[in-house]
Amino acid sequence: MNVWDTRKRARLMNKETRKKFIKRKQTEISAAEMVDAILSGDRTILSRAITLIESNAGRHKKTAEEILQSLLPRAGKSVRIGITGVPGAGKSTFIESFGLLLCNKGHRVAVLAVDPSSTVHGGSILGDKTRMEQLAKHPNAFIRPSPSGGTLGGVHRKTRETMIACEAAGYDVLLIETVGVGQSEVLVRGMVDFFMLLVLTGAGDELQGMKKGIMELADAVIVNKADGRNLELAKKTQREYKQILHFLQPATQGWTTPALTCSALFKQGIEEIWEMVLRYIEVTKASGLFQENRKMQAKEWLYALIKEELESAFFGDEKVKSLVPGIEKKVMDEEITVTKASGLLFDAFYDRLC
Amino acid sequence: MNVWDTRKRARLMNKETRKKFIKRKQTEISAAEMVDAILSGDRTILSRAITLIESNAGRHKKTAEEILQSLLPRAGKSVRIGITGVPGAGKSTFIESFGLLLCNKGHRVAVLAVDPSSTVHGGSILGDKTRMEQLAKHPNAFIRPSPSGGTLGGVHRKTRETMIACEAAGYDVLLIETVGVGQSEVLVRGMVDFFMLLVLTGAGDELQGMKKGIMELADAVIVNKADGRNLELAKKTQREYKQILHFLQPATQGWTTPALTCSALFKQGIEEIWEMVLRYIEVTKASGLFQENRKMQAKEWLYALIKEELESAFFGDEKVKSLVPGIEKKVMDEEITVTKASGLLFDAFYDRLC
Repeated sequence: MNVWDTRKRARLMNKETRKKFIKRKQTEISAAEMVDAILSGDRTILSRAITLIESNAGRHKKTAEEILQSLLPRAGKSVRIGITGVPGAGKSTFIESFGLLLCNKGHRVAVLAVDPSSTVHGGSILGDKTRMEQLAKHPNAFIRPSPSGGTLGGVHRKTRETMIACEAAGYDVLLIETVGVGQSEVLVRGMVDFFMLLVLTGAGDELQGMKKGIMELADAVIVNKADGRNLELAKKTQREYKQILHFLQPATQGWTTPALTCSALFKQGIEEIWEMVLRYIEVTKASGLFQENRKMQAKEWLYALIKEELESAFFGDEKVKSLVPGIEKKVMDEEITVTKASGLLFDAFYDRLC
Repeated sequence: MNVWDTRKRARLMNKETRKKFIKRKQTEISAAEMVDAILSGDRTILSRAITLIESNAGRHKKTAEEILQSLLPRAGKSVRIGITGVPGAGKSTFIESFGLLLCNKGHRVAVLAVDPSSTVHGGSILGDKTRMEQLAKHPNAFIRPSPSGGTLGGVHRKTRETMIACEAAGYDVLLIETVGVGQSEVLVRGMVDFFMLLVLTGAGDELQGMKKGIMELADAVIVNKADGRNLELAKKTQREYKQILHFLQPATQGWTTPALTCSALFKQGIEEIWEMVLRYIEVTKASGLFQENRKMQAKEWLYALIKEELESAFFGDEKVKSLVPGIEKKVMDEEITVTKASGLLFDAFYDRLC
């Protein structure tokens, strides 16, 4: 019995039994079957595979690796776009407008969220698909909510792998959304081809509250909500950003970071943004930077992952955990040097490890 | 026989014997004797203690820790100033002028260099004291060349401890010089109270070549070489920097990052820079940020140190080292996922560790 029969049968059952049945069957579907289903465009199985990929359980690890290893040769053929912006900049509305435009052009669009704050708040920026209601319904779109339960590292650790799965499933535009918290922009910048920053009018005030260095990560600054009575102000803001960008080093060599305006709500200026992205891809592919970037990103991601795992092992150690608060306080009160403090923690760590 | 007798006797010997004698005696001077000598202002012993602190040899570690533990209660009473700038901005000349001004005011000034490139080039930005000839001769100054042989981490790892030794020795102004390479600015920013960026005229061009995000680390931007025919241009550059700074988030809360001009060569505007630093200290001490910053810096340094040591252990492992090139290539060629690659390296690491 293959996966299709299983799902057909499941549909005939009552909700409770069906849930249990699917749950049981889930583990019985082989990696090979999942790969076939993903390649043939099954969104339910794609979702399930992503859940496996995101899982920290040891028993899922092997299957996830098998799946990814099979999908890898089919991945990489998309345009990866990172989207960030201050809260209130209208990211959801923008992604909906931008995504719909692309879907209507025949593209297949996957929206992924990197939300480092989700573990803190217990919530998720993509917690429900109602944020992008129209896009969620489109047959060409796939919206993957951010995992709400995972660890901070967990979210980042697996987004790259999730991208592989989506690309293999035929999604040729990936939109990676991030909120301006912690190191998320730097991490997202490190896994996309194009990174855009959504802003509102009032550049001066806004920049004051903007995360340091974020402007220099962006391949484009988009002033959103350029509509109605806000239009003139948006144009002024655009000019201000152009002026600042002139002084800053561009995020991508050979590309002059532009400042554009749009109204995501009224779907104005959205087409122009896509055209700009296409131009960027043309320029960077011609210079070879596009492929080179991807190679460097893969390498950097490997090192980021290793570092993260080393730190998880160290700071996740029970003995280290129990010592950290006391030692941290002594360091802050200048009672011991940092070298001494680090030595004490390493002694505890290695003692238990070996 | 205490350390003083030892040195007196050494002076009577011929050069060769003396060297050997001092070398032998060096290890015989107890930590307590070194601490006494440092506290009484002996620059030779201070230098020797710093060499011990910087040493990676296990046998020096215990002594260095003893010394630092004794010095720690006497440290912390200085103003720590970080100074960075693009090559050619005139850092050496500035430090000489600024340092001499302070020495002549009765301050005791220690100049330390953080040079992450020294291991790469085998050289050092402070390789000889001839760069700051006048300052080096001043009785109130102590110039510590950057260690040329140490590891990249070694330079950073111990600068903080070197600062402790200098402070305990009575130096009340520390000037930490860094070149704009790699992560050095971020690291130096994380161990000073005040961080200044030295620039030249032609803000637009210069900013294009400036490291990303560096402007947002600075508590002051100083346009150097504001003299002669360059004066007008320097004033214009100052205005441009003011304009850019207006849009950026200040490095320190409650402090508006100013742009000033000076001529380090003709010793103009130097006094004003010191007055500005004093104003900054007044403001941040009043708001409590000064002490709070130091506490946070100590804590962050601890974490940076731990991370660095974890990475050294991992990437320094012989088996890991031998596997890295092949695995890195496979990741870049998208033959294996980063998760898989990381897993392979960790297997090798843990295998050997336990």
